[in-house]
This record gives sequence, C-alpha cells and structure tokens, in this order.
Amino acid sequence: MSAPVLDLAQDPVDLTQVLCDIESVSGHERALADAVEHALRALPHLTVARFGDAVVARTQLGRGERVVLAGHLDTVPLAAEPNLPTWYEGDLLYGRGTCDMKGGVAVQLALAARLAEPSRDLTYVFYDGEEVESERNGLGRIAREAPELLQADLAVLLEPTSARVEGGCNGTMRVDVTTHGTAAHSARAWMGENAIHAAGAVLGRLVAYETQDVEVEGLVFRESLGAVRIGGGVAGNVIPDRCTVTVNYRFAPSKTVEDAEHHLRELFTGFDVEVTDAAGGARPGLDRPMAKAFVETVGHEPGPKYGWTDVARFSEVGVPAVNYGPGDPLKAHADDEHVPVQEIRDCLRVLATWLS
Amino acid sequence: MSAPVLDLAQDPVDLTQVLCDIESVSGHERALADAVEHALRALPHLTVARFGDAVVARTQLGRGERVVLAGHLDTVPLAAEPNLPTWYEGDLLYGRGTCDMKGGVAVQLALAARLAEPSRDLTYVFYDGEEVESERNGLGRIAREAPELLQADLAVLLEPTSARVEGGCNGTMRVDVTTHGTAAHSARAWMGENAIHAAGAVLGRLVAYETQDVEVEGLVFRESLGAVRIGGGVAGNVIPDRCTVTVNYRFAPSKTVEDAEHHLRELFTGFDVEVTDAAGGARPGLDRPMAKAFVETVGHEPGPKYGWTDVARFSEVGVPAVNYGPGDPLKAHADDEHVPVQEIRDCLRVLATWLS
Repeated sequence: MSAPVLDLAQDPVDLTQVLCDIESVSGHERALADAVEHALRALPHLTVARFGDAVVARTQLGRGERVVLAGHLDTVPLAAEPNLPTWYEGDLLYGRGTCDMKGGVAVQLALAARLAEPSRDLTYVFYDGEEVESERNGLGRIAREAPELLQADLAVLLEPTSARVEGGCNGTMRVDVTTHGTAAHSARAWMGENAIHAAGAVLGRLVAYETQDVEVEGLVFRESLGAVRIGGGVAGNVIPDRCTVTVNYRFAPSKTVEDAEHHLRELFTGFDVEVTDAAGGARPGLDRPMAKAFVETVGHEPGPKYGWTDVARFSEVGVPAVNYGPGDPLKAHADDEHVPVQEIRDCLRVLATWLS
Repeated sequence: MSAPVLDLAQDPVDLTQVLCDIESVSGHERALADAVEHALRALPHLTVARFGDAVVARTQLGRGERVVLAGHLDTVPLAAEPNLPTWYEGDLLYGRGTCDMKGGVAVQLALAARLAEPSRDLTYVFYDGEEVESERNGLGRIAREAPELLQADLAVLLEPTSARVEGGCNGTMRVDVTTHGTAAHSARAWMGENAIHAAGAVLGRLVAYETQDVEVEGLVFRESLGAVRIGGGVAGNVIPDRCTVTVNYRFAPSKTVEDAEHHLRELFTGFDVEVTDAAGGARPGLDRPMAKAFVETVGHEPGPKYGWTDVARFSEVGVPAVNYGPGDPLKAHADDEHVPVQEIRDCLRVLATWLS
C-alpha cells in the first residue's frame, strides 16, 4: 500500500482531520509513519531518519539552542461506536485521535513546513507505541538507539493540555496483588479457602485509601490509586486458590519509583505484591530559562500534568520537558473524544511565534 | 478400533483396574461404552439398548419391583502427573477414575453378570458426560429420549460414598453478580467510578455470609456459598466500568430453585444478579419402603450428600434415588484419586445380597 500524501501547507485543522482518518491504533502505525516520513523528506531544510515506525526530522542551522517538538502517532482502539472518519459538531472535531493526539501532530507537521528558518534549531519526533506497554514505546526506542537525536535545551510534548503549559508528570506503577487459598470442590466449599473472598480485603484497602495532593516546585500534583484488573477462578465448581488484583498507582514526581514501591508494599502488607510495570514521573522543570521563556509566550499560568507522559523520558535523558497541546486531556480515550479546533490554531500560532 | 473385551466374571477389583485403564475423559467415552455394550450383549438375560455413548441393559422377569443401578463412564481430565495406568499402594487402587467412579461401574457390571435371576427386575444404566455441562449428560439424554427406561421403584447411583448410603443431594445455582461504574483513564481515576472497587462489597457479603445446615427428612444438609470466578478490567490504564463475580450456591433439597434465586437476589440486593445455571436438589426419600429395605441391608446409618449428583435427575422423573458406591467422595477429581479395594467388594456383596 502506498502512503497517503499529506499536504503540510494546508490548514492545520484540515490536516488534523486527514491524520485522524488514517487509522493508526497502536501496532498499526505503519501507514501514518510512511505518510509523515514522505512529507518530511520533501522539505529541503530537514534531515530525516526513520526508526521502525518512528520518524525524526531535524534542522541543522547551527543555532545556539535546540527545541524538540514531540508527539505520538498511535491512538487507543476505536470505540464501540464507529468514530472514524471524523466529523464536526460546531467548532469541535470528533473522533478517535482528534484529542490524543493528532491535533498536536498536525501542529508539529505544520511547523515543520512553515519554519524553514526557525530562531532555534528544531527536532521533530513522531513515534509509535505510546498507548501500550512501555517496551513498545517508539520514543524509548529512539532513546536507546540514537539518544543524541533527543538532546535539546527544551522538549515540548504536544499531548493535550487545552493549549496550556503543563509541567512535569506523575509517575506510574502497576503491581499485582495476589491472594492465595486452597482449592476445593464448590459442593464442599468448607474444605477449601477461597482466594477470591480473600481479595475482598485488598479491595477494602483500595476503597479506604485516601489519595494525596503533593506540591512540587509550585505545582500541585494529584495522585491516584485504583484497581485496573481483577482475575481469579478456574472452573464453575471449584473454590479458587488464587486471585490477582492489578493496581495502578500514579504518584507525584517528588517520589522515586522506589518510594512508590515501598508505599504500595506497606499498603498491601500481608499480601503477595509484584511490581509489573513502573516509570518515574518528571519534575515540572519550569524554573529553567528555556521553559520560562516558553511559558511567557503562551501567556497562561502553568499547571501540573496528572497523567504519565513521555516528558518523563526526556527527563531521564536530562532534557527539561513540558506538555503543551490542543485538546482537553479528559477527552483522551473517551468515547466522545474531540478537540476544539481553535486550540489547534492557537498552539500553532504560539509555537510559530516563539520559534520564529 | 475394536472395543477391548471385558471379563465381567473376574474379580471386581481387577475389573475396576481394567475399566480405569481404558481412558474415558468426558467426550471420549466411546471405547469404554463399546466395551460395556459388547460385554452386556453377551448376557442372555439382559435386553440392551444404546443411546450415543450411553448403554441401558434390563432384565424383564416380570418381578413386582424394579431397581435401577446407574453410573457414569466418564472421568475428569487426567492430572498433571500421569495417573494412568492405575497402580496399587497397599489396599488402595490409585489413578484417575478409581474413585469417581469406575469402582462403582465395576460393581454394576459384576452384578449384571452374576444376577441372572435377581429378586427384583434390574435396569443397569451406564452413561457419558456426567463431569461436564448439564446438556451433555447422558442420563439426561436417556430421560429425554426414552424416559420409560428409567422408571423404577428405587434408583441406586453408584457415585462414591465410602460404601454408605447417602440420601438426596444439594441443589446448585450459579449467578453472575455484576457491579457497574464509570470508565476513566487511571491517571485521573477520580473522574471515574471503579467497578472493581465496588465489587469489594460483593466479596464482603460473601465473607460475612453464614452458611446454613438444613435438616431434611432426618438428614442434615450443609449448604455452601462461594465465589468461583471474578473478572474485571479492560486495560492497564483504564478504571474499569464493570466487574463480575460468579457465585456458586449449593442449597439444601428442601429449597426449590426459585427459593435459591430469591435468597441470592436478597443477599445481593443493590447489585445486578443474573442466574446462569441452576439444578434443583433431591430429597433423600429414605422414608420409602424400598429405600428403607436397602438401608437395612447396608447396615450403616445413612447420611446426606452434599454435592449435586444425578440422583436429582431421577428425582425429577419421580424415582426415589440414593447414592451408594465405593470410594471417598473427597478423593473424586483429586490428584491422588484412589479407592479402597475393600469397598468395591463390600458394595458388590451388599447389592448382590439385597437383590438375590
């Protein structure tokens, strides 16, 4: 299949719609990555490299500073109701990917076409696998294979923030909390010990848990803790000997991964706890000069980012990073996902101004 | 494949071993059913009929009373450790099917060969599909296709009872208890309502539940109630909007299926309750003359049967039925399944005496 041809010079809202209508659920980003690569290679001021289904394009103008503009190409699966192709309701563009985050990707591409002579050198990163397990994340792959391509004075991740600057992000940890019992035939349940019943105490601790608000560098990060999966049982007539509750903890960037693990092991004392997935958060970093200059251009008071985003990956390689993109983050992954088209235009205008 | 040849005149313990070594996990009873049919057709005092992989053989001597002797041919799957062929440890015969219930089937076959002139007319029923879902049960199939063949004054089901009479059986009902919530991204868990957390209250009611002992016709039936399965969750970063706990209720035979459903709906008030499977129990029926005579011959005090067995199917067609067979019911389905060989001999002796 040949890649669809993208017109980067067109209106960024129209471009958003074109990008959304190229389905790119995680694992199926190839067609969109091909289209992006093809369009960027046509721009003589950019040097383009490809990493699997991730694309990196850079200016090399010898400017004193460099800014990364990054966004992911994949979306979560389509909702039960078809939400492709996209459609308009007034000034809102609806459909999977409109908010998370093809609006942001359209802004990146529009900047790439418009800024042949930016005031700072620019690195555009488009990557796959953001909505799935960490090992599949395309930005992580670039960080492993060509970390020099991510070096910059500031990274802007165009995740949805309602076109406001959001600094840092919470960390995330998933643990499996497992209860053990003794199997028995359910006709003689008293011969066994029911591991699902034992999981009631795990759920009880979750229900009783009081989440914390943690202030970090002037921003208040709201934590959360909740079960995302539960499973147990082997057959309809067997008292089960095992039940597992998967818990996701989103913790403030002032805590390390080790702090988070310690906290969960303490909370679930007496149960078998296994960490299955973890990623530290990112401090807001808004006290650094590059970040301050950008915040001033945006003109809004910055806020904290609750969700874990790939700013943490930049944080890990020593690059301060902020989130700034079109769309209400609460509409990411929602069945009624949408983006206010004005925010796409606003983001493009602000970034073009700052980088010209 | 030609059916193995069974020697019904041999020692019943040796015969048990031969029967066990013909693998007959549910769905694969054909070879054993063929062997049984073949052996029974060789006996001139029996009229033999075949229904799929079930076999019915009857005397037609015009006696005033008729007794059914019934047993299933199938076993649950082999354990992880190979448990075929069978082996001895002292006076215990080990291996899949030894207890549940080839020892009983061997007693049936031995009686068929030995009792050419029984004091009561006899109907031997050997059937498939007892260890799997109700629709596949061979006794149920005979009840639908040729119910007249099951008519009798008493049925003895040779399920393991440690060679004591166990009257009636508990009923069984499975319900799905579902909680509903509101999905949200787990980074902003407070925007949703966690259905798994809500299931904590379902488990709480199960843990707090006090099971009842119910006396029915002089026998005390112990009930039980427990979760056999739980499931909820859609992805590692989504607060789930649905969680289902599957609960199995084993209820005394004095209660109808409707009583049981009413009880569970009351217990789980406020939750979404769906009945997925139900079968009524069977009253012990030990006050009837035929049953009394049999109990006297056995010479032990009768007890209740906790597990649901096919006595309930006889109960449904109006035939009083008891369980009586070799093997400890707690060893049915166990990895260390075995039968004390003396119990095989005892059952054969008692039944031969009673029916001669």
